[in-house]
Amino acid sequence: MCGIVGIYSNKDIAKELYYSLYSIQHRGQESCGIAISNGDNINYKKDMGLVGDVFKESELANLKGSIGIGHVRYSTAGGSHLANCQPLVGRCRKRELALAHNGNLVNANYLRDMLEEDGYMFQANSDTEVILYILARYYKGDIVESIKITMDYIKGAYSLVIMGEDELVAVRDPHGFRPLVLGKKGDEYIFASENCAIDILGGEVIRDVEPGEIIVAKDGKLKSYFYSENYKPVKRSCIFEHIYFARNDATIDNVNAYDFRVKCGEVLAKDEDIKADIVVPVPDSGWAGAVGYSNESKLPLSEGLVKNRYVGRTFIKPTQEEREIGVKIKLNPLSNVVKGKSIVLVDDSVVRGTTSKLIVKSLRDAGASEIHLRITSPPVQYSCYYGIDTPHRSNLIASGNDVEYIREYIGCDSLKFLDIDLMVEATENKATFCKACFDGDYPVKKLDREELLSC
Amino acid sequence: MCGIVGIYSNKDIAKELYYSLYSIQHRGQESCGIAISNGDNINYKKDMGLVGDVFKESELANLKGSIGIGHVRYSTAGGSHLANCQPLVGRCRKRELALAHNGNLVNANYLRDMLEEDGYMFQANSDTEVILYILARYYKGDIVESIKITMDYIKGAYSLVIMGEDELVAVRDPHGFRPLVLGKKGDEYIFASENCAIDILGGEVIRDVEPGEIIVAKDGKLKSYFYSENYKPVKRSCIFEHIYFARNDATIDNVNAYDFRVKCGEVLAKDEDIKADIVVPVPDSGWAGAVGYSNESKLPLSEGLVKNRYVGRTFIKPTQEEREIGVKIKLNPLSNVVKGKSIVLVDDSVVRGTTSKLIVKSLRDAGASEIHLRITSPPVQYSCYYGIDTPHRSNLIASGNDVEYIREYIGCDSLKFLDIDLMVEATENKATFCKACFDGDYPVKKLDREELLSC
Amino acid sequence: MCGIVGIYSNKDIAKELYYSLYSIQHRGQESCGIAISNGDNINYKKDMGLVGDVFKESELANLKGSIGIGHVRYSTAGGSHLANCQPLVGRCRKRELALAHNGNLVNANYLRDMLEEDGYMFQANSDTEVILYILARYYKGDIVESIKITMDYIKGAYSLVIMGEDELVAVRDPHGFRPLVLGKKGDEYIFASENCAIDILGGEVIRDVEPGEIIVAKDGKLKSYFYSENYKPVKRSCIFEHIYFARNDATIDNVNAYDFRVKCGEVLAKDEDIKADIVVPVPDSGWAGAVGYSNESKLPLSEGLVKNRYVGRTFIKPTQEEREIGVKIKLNPLSNVVKGKSIVLVDDSVVRGTTSKLIVKSLRDAGASEIHLRITSPPVQYSCYYGIDTPHRSNLIASGNDVEYIREYIGCDSLKFLDIDLMVEATENKATFCKACFDGDYPVKKLDREELLSC
Amino acid sequence: MCGIVGIYSNKDIAKELYYSLYSIQHRGQESCGIAISNGDNINYKKDMGLVGDVFKESELANLKGSIGIGHVRYSTAGGSHLANCQPLVGRCRKRELALAHNGNLVNANYLRDMLEEDGYMFQANSDTEVILYILARYYKGDIVESIKITMDYIKGAYSLVIMGEDELVAVRDPHGFRPLVLGKKGDEYIFASENCAIDILGGEVIRDVEPGEIIVAKDGKLKSYFYSENYKPVKRSCIFEHIYFARNDATIDNVNAYDFRVKCGEVLAKDEDIKADIVVPVPDSGWAGAVGYSNESKLPLSEGLVKNRYVGRTFIKPTQEEREIGVKIKLNPLSNVVKGKSIVLVDDSVVRGTTSKLIVKSLRDAGASEIHLRITSPPVQYSCYYGIDTPHRSNLIASGNDVEYIREYIGCDSLKFLDIDLMVEATENKATFCKACFDGDYPVKKLDREELLSC
Repeated sequence: MCGIVGIYSNKDIAKELYYSLYSIQHRGQESCGIAISNGDNINYKKDMGLVGDVFKESELANLKGSIGIGHVRYSTAGGSHLANCQPLVGRCRKRELALAHNGNLVNANYLRDMLEEDGYMFQANSDTEVILYILARYYKGDIVESIKITMDYIKGAYSLVIMGEDELVAVRDPHGFRPLVLGKKGDEYIFASENCAIDILGGEVIRDVEPGEIIVAKDGKLKSYFYSENYKPVKRSCIFEHIYFARNDATIDNVNAYDFRVKCGEVLAKDEDIKADIVVPVPDSGWAGAVGYSNESKLPLSEGLVKNRYVGRTFIKPTQEEREIGVKIKLNPLSNVVKGKSIVLVDDSVVRGTTSKLIVKSLRDAGASEIHLRITSPPVQYSCYYGIDTPHRSNLIASGNDVEYIREYIGCDSLKFLDIDLMVEATENKATFCKACFDGDYPVKKLDREELLSC
Repeated sequence: MCGIVGIYSNKDIAKELYYSLYSIQHRGQESCGIAISNGDNINYKKDMGLVGDVFKESELANLKGSIGIGHVRYSTAGGSHLANCQPLVGRCRKRELALAHNGNLVNANYLRDMLEEDGYMFQANSDTEVILYILARYYKGDIVESIKITMDYIKGAYSLVIMGEDELVAVRDPHGFRPLVLGKKGDEYIFASENCAIDILGGEVIRDVEPGEIIVAKDGKLKSYFYSENYKPVKRSCIFEHIYFARNDATIDNVNAYDFRVKCGEVLAKDEDIKADIVVPVPDSGWAGAVGYSNESKLPLSEGLVKNRYVGRTFIKPTQEEREIGVKIKLNPLSNVVKGKSIVLVDDSVVRGTTSKLIVKSLRDAGASEIHLRITSPPVQYSCYYGIDTPHRSNLIASGNDVEYIREYIGCDSLKFLDIDLMVEATENKATFCKACFDGDYPVKKLDREELLSC
Repeated sequence: MCGIVGIYSNKDIAKELYYSLYSIQHRGQESCGIAISNGDNINYKKDMGLVGDVFKESELANLKGSIGIGHVRYSTAGGSHLANCQPLVGRCRKRELALAHNGNLVNANYLRDMLEEDGYMFQANSDTEVILYILARYYKGDIVESIKITMDYIKGAYSLVIMGEDELVAVRDPHGFRPLVLGKKGDEYIFASENCAIDILGGEVIRDVEPGEIIVAKDGKLKSYFYSENYKPVKRSCIFEHIYFARNDATIDNVNAYDFRVKCGEVLAKDEDIKADIVVPVPDSGWAGAVGYSNESKLPLSEGLVKNRYVGRTFIKPTQEEREIGVKIKLNPLSNVVKGKSIVLVDDSVVRGTTSKLIVKSLRDAGASEIHLRITSPPVQYSCYYGIDTPHRSNLIASGNDVEYIREYIGCDSLKFLDIDLMVEATENKATFCKACFDGDYPVKKLDREELLSC
Repeated sequence: MCGIVGIYSNKDIAKELYYSLYSIQHRGQESCGIAISNGDNINYKKDMGLVGDVFKESELANLKGSIGIGHVRYSTAGGSHLANCQPLVGRCRKRELALAHNGNLVNANYLRDMLEEDGYMFQANSDTEVILYILARYYKGDIVESIKITMDYIKGAYSLVIMGEDELVAVRDPHGFRPLVLGKKGDEYIFASENCAIDILGGEVIRDVEPGEIIVAKDGKLKSYFYSENYKPVKRSCIFEHIYFARNDATIDNVNAYDFRVKCGEVLAKDEDIKADIVVPVPDSGWAGAVGYSNESKLPLSEGLVKNRYVGRTFIKPTQEEREIGVKIKLNPLSNVVKGKSIVLVDDSVVRGTTSKLIVKSLRDAGASEIHLRITSPPVQYSCYYGIDTPHRSNLIASGNDVEYIREYIGCDSLKFLDIDLMVEATENKATFCKACFDGDYPVKKLDREELLSC
């Protein structure tokens, strides 16, 4: 769960990178960074914190240059430490390289060991440094060649923007797990995790970067390469991006997040036989599904939970005995909306189940007579190895437990998940997906458990 | 536009004040503060910034005491300066007093001059210091007496929480412009601008403080007084709180904000003869009205604008030529929702008209074929003297201009406002209101323009 | 222990105030502030911390105006709190006033009670606010008149700079306890606690402000007034400024600190019959006295203790068991200088005796064979009520104890203080002094103990 | 110009490292850091700024472990950037290593190119990363072996502390350019750039680490190795450490800085035939020499320049026209000491000559009748390649110019430097020295100019 941006232009672009990163802040709030080439050198600034807090106007003004990349990070692999902030910037064979990465490798530990055996010294503990080191090792003057060799080594999910002094390269792994979109604004090329980072600059989206594709922006032109000539891309676009992670305005691999989410709500509402008064979304993630559910069921949509707009910022953690405050500060039930009502509560997914449990309790305390929880995706039963920060299987409420068990745990009157096939149908088959978190069908063989645990 | 909280308890309440203020952060983001009495002394901490940023856990732990007040501030009168942060804390006649204030006096300048003539020295430039000084001047041992005298002097809108070493007092002005709610949690009494600050603590709402009422919490008991025995309260609850300012979960003077907002949308949808495809809310303020409009019109509700959850934080201001970025970073149109559609765009109010104009343009750029703007309140034609930060009349688009003029300025295909009488009807007459911003009928005579400008 | 500066010019002077305050930073490290009048308004910035940390270049650039005052504060009366930072700025009778104060009143509590009785509200708890309120109360358009009345009320030590929108006033109390110097640079007038604040700007010192004098800079001219026409100033210049507090380059009331300190060392060396090898100063305060002692005794001066230049900055307090680290981080003995030597250790004063004790121990540990401590002032036996932060009498090692007792406590082989009469002789009678801390002869009757303790 | 510390203990040592670094803060004020091994992992904290500002008590408490190293940095090679802060910490062959370095390599660029050719990626641009990478490359399980190989590669000046999870290693280059002292406190071993870092902890100095020596602390014992069995150490202790850089209490390679500095002043005073009234030191660097000069010449020592204790902290840079303020804020002449006097001004060295020029001017403005500048070292004619931050030769006033030229530039009445042979004599031949900055005799062949400039 990270966001990346790359801009190739012929004018200073620090501020554009800033706005782009700001627009994809939802993809990572832990740290952020910008690296910019002025043609001769790459300068950068990165730090823990939000885009709006890390960058001051004067600093952006000092980051001169027309090629640049940016990153927002939510820690997955690699701890929460300044050394893991991206972009990573280094020098090899007398040239400078910068790299920003979204995704997760499944063989990072193996590769790290291999490089350590060869005498390399790692200074961070992220997958990204592994990629950078392999890239440097095989770089002999042709960046595309070294990227292809690197792609032979690294397995898993990666969308990358790589920058040299005079070129910008975008790379998407052969399965296309993580999104990467290409846009254009006049003579300027923009790569970004989500199209909103292009929209914000007034640019237009051209297309997705293809699985296994390497696009180089250099000398004012774009050139496309593929990982291997014989390579047949098998797109495995992460379905969880569409369900939860991307913004509603994201169109990734031809699927629009909002349309898909509404559709899932509609599908879920079919064949319902419960009698309810209102449809209540869990804000903000459940809104689109609730709109769909309301459309189809003709039940009125009502805001039964008010979200505090300031949550997500710094907040002193409640003690155990103040535990309910933690949920209430985020979501306060609207008692006069829910009192005495039978409600259909719509959310996009259930992971641990703990938040759902507290929400259901708070709605009951506010007087709801019946609570029917409807989830616009299937039960999450498997961990993700490709960059979504799902917890270990043992913490997934749906792992090894049936729906009735989950219902009882959460405490709602009824519970339904969206069927996996109906979910895929709702995408209108515009792409092929990785649904491993639901069905355990991992496109890239996961490594043994021991190794993964130590990642 | 400020928020206040007061808690009278028999245990340490710094952290409760923190959570309460956090929940009403939407009422003021400029500065915040907490003052707490340990029985002998009042200690405080206040600073520019958000609740989550200003207070650290260790500092709260140091603010010992069981009586306390808190404040979040959005500057209205008085500039943006540390000296204007509240609560104000002072010492008079060997006792300490702290004061937090929501509202705006109409005769603050006159009173300030009067006190200056008498040799008083003002150190801030807020209305609140004026109230504190009068309170101190007439305090002779009985806080209720001095409050009554103070209420003789001060004219306008004020909800106050006042704290002495051993007592907490809540005061609402004789018209009850600004909200003030009384709650209870066990032996603990809580006063707050909105009920969410009581809900968050797990307390229950008892009732609104009445116009002209003075409630004293002391020696474990509550006692109620009125400004004047012969005083007949004429409630003039600010309608704009219900339209825009309060959270959806607020119930002020018996009117629930969410219900009212939905109702306004429903009323507006009646007698419509336009043909449209979808109803699109301006997030977040237009959601409730759009839900109502959709209910009544049977047109489907669709999210056509995505709001960036991180806006409101620090943000480097776009230059003039990047002007559209300022709107897009906040609201990005969902082009595949709006493309080729005739949309009903719903918002709660139009003040300057500039934001509406930019939203309409951005929806058109995204391909909307027709845009029918519907506003769930009447045109704002008059400035507010009672604490809502409306601009000077000359900047109100509806001041002196008819609806057609506004429509042309905003650039939408049609524009309708909610009729003022229908709006009042939508409140179900649960209270009487100040609607001066719409009809110019000011409950408290405003002072002459010169004086007000210099406020 | 504070430092003040005032500048009256016809060009922007924020940066000059900054440099001046920087040069008198030794007079107070707790907080600092600058207030500047642009002719119409007074703007200010003040905060906890050092001059170099509080002020940024951009902020100084925003403080436009040609009249200004500044303050550095070391808390004496009034706790360590933002509200006590100076200058204090307020508005009375439609004009703004700013005030910075060095010194301590002996009747502040009495005056505060008096004003509270009259309905005034105090927002800080410093003497300075008392002065400001009395000034405001009696201000009727003529600043000099109100200052004279204020001087009738306030008793004790005060050097003040007071600023209105168009004038700057310097005031020194009738005894002239605290220093205040007048300087000039072209058309510009400068008042400052020490001449280094004038030197730094390239200005020249004109003279000391006289006891009881009020100097007004207005309309480009200086005008001098006196507290009372019949008033005969009896200068009681604080001798401790000359002994310790002022910088070596200060000339206050005609006495140069460095000359005086050297002289005291010389006087002390006369009639000595000890046999010693070297003279070692306690840095930095003992250097001048040690130079004098070495001159007179012909014993070579040697640096036996090295001072860490970074002490005084933030420093994590050693625990009890690391207690000696606290001294060593400040002063490390030069073992090869002191080993086997009989040394004369020179310091300027002994207050609690604890530091001397630890220094003597550390020199012994480093191998000194004999340590003869020589103090270039008499024993401090009485607390100061006029602004020097001496501890309560019970903590003064010399209060009620004879020299032999002190010697034993400190652990040196011999101990001598400078005789009080010889000390005065060393000033060459250039001024008359307050020596109350040595002889208990308080020029202004101190108030009763109870009241003072609660100050 | 950096300072390093290493501690091997059996209890938590974060706070000891903190105090040690605090005591050698004079060796580097740009950044600082601490890395500590808890036996399994190395954790660290480093940042731009001073020791007292970077480390908070709570953070130190979190850095658990009994083996640790620390660093204070004054940038020489490698720009001023967070990436260049030390210690560097990395992982190679499944173990972690941390490294702190004082000194400068002469072949860093060559080595960096070599490693880049082999596919290594540099993330900082300091010499230290080069050392770390070579160390990692040749590390095969025996740290001493890999250090020896590394020492084959790296040429120039380096004192190192290297830490693995369970061992601490101290290394000094074969010429011993930079100091490194071994101390002991109970069972604890301490390595540090200067003995004050040992003194502060209450430890005792054992001896200097020898040129070419590798000392390993492991399993509670010390073991000493040498770079090469046949290696004959030729000590080339940096004379400039003794002249200027080390604290007065430093004893490096048997030479005590204070004794040496005093001696240099004495030597310089011999055969003088000028008639002067007083000896004035340039504080603080000229004090010891001035004491020696005064001893020998029998001229009285006088403080003619007062140093502001707060300079060195944050300070807004004066503009060109305020240029003299920059000197005056640092050093203010004591006019009544120098007025009408013929003074011998003593400083330790002249590099660019600009500061001396401004000091001389400011003493003349203060009334000095004659100024005879005496420098207790020879003219600095050559740049240092071993870690002292002397400017390029073209900026050295003594490079290519004779003494008369320098005298005229500085504007003093006479000027004398200490003869190079007399300087060496003053060390009493306790060591052999690198004096390359004075005589151009570089112990390690410098590389060609081009390469060095690009360092």
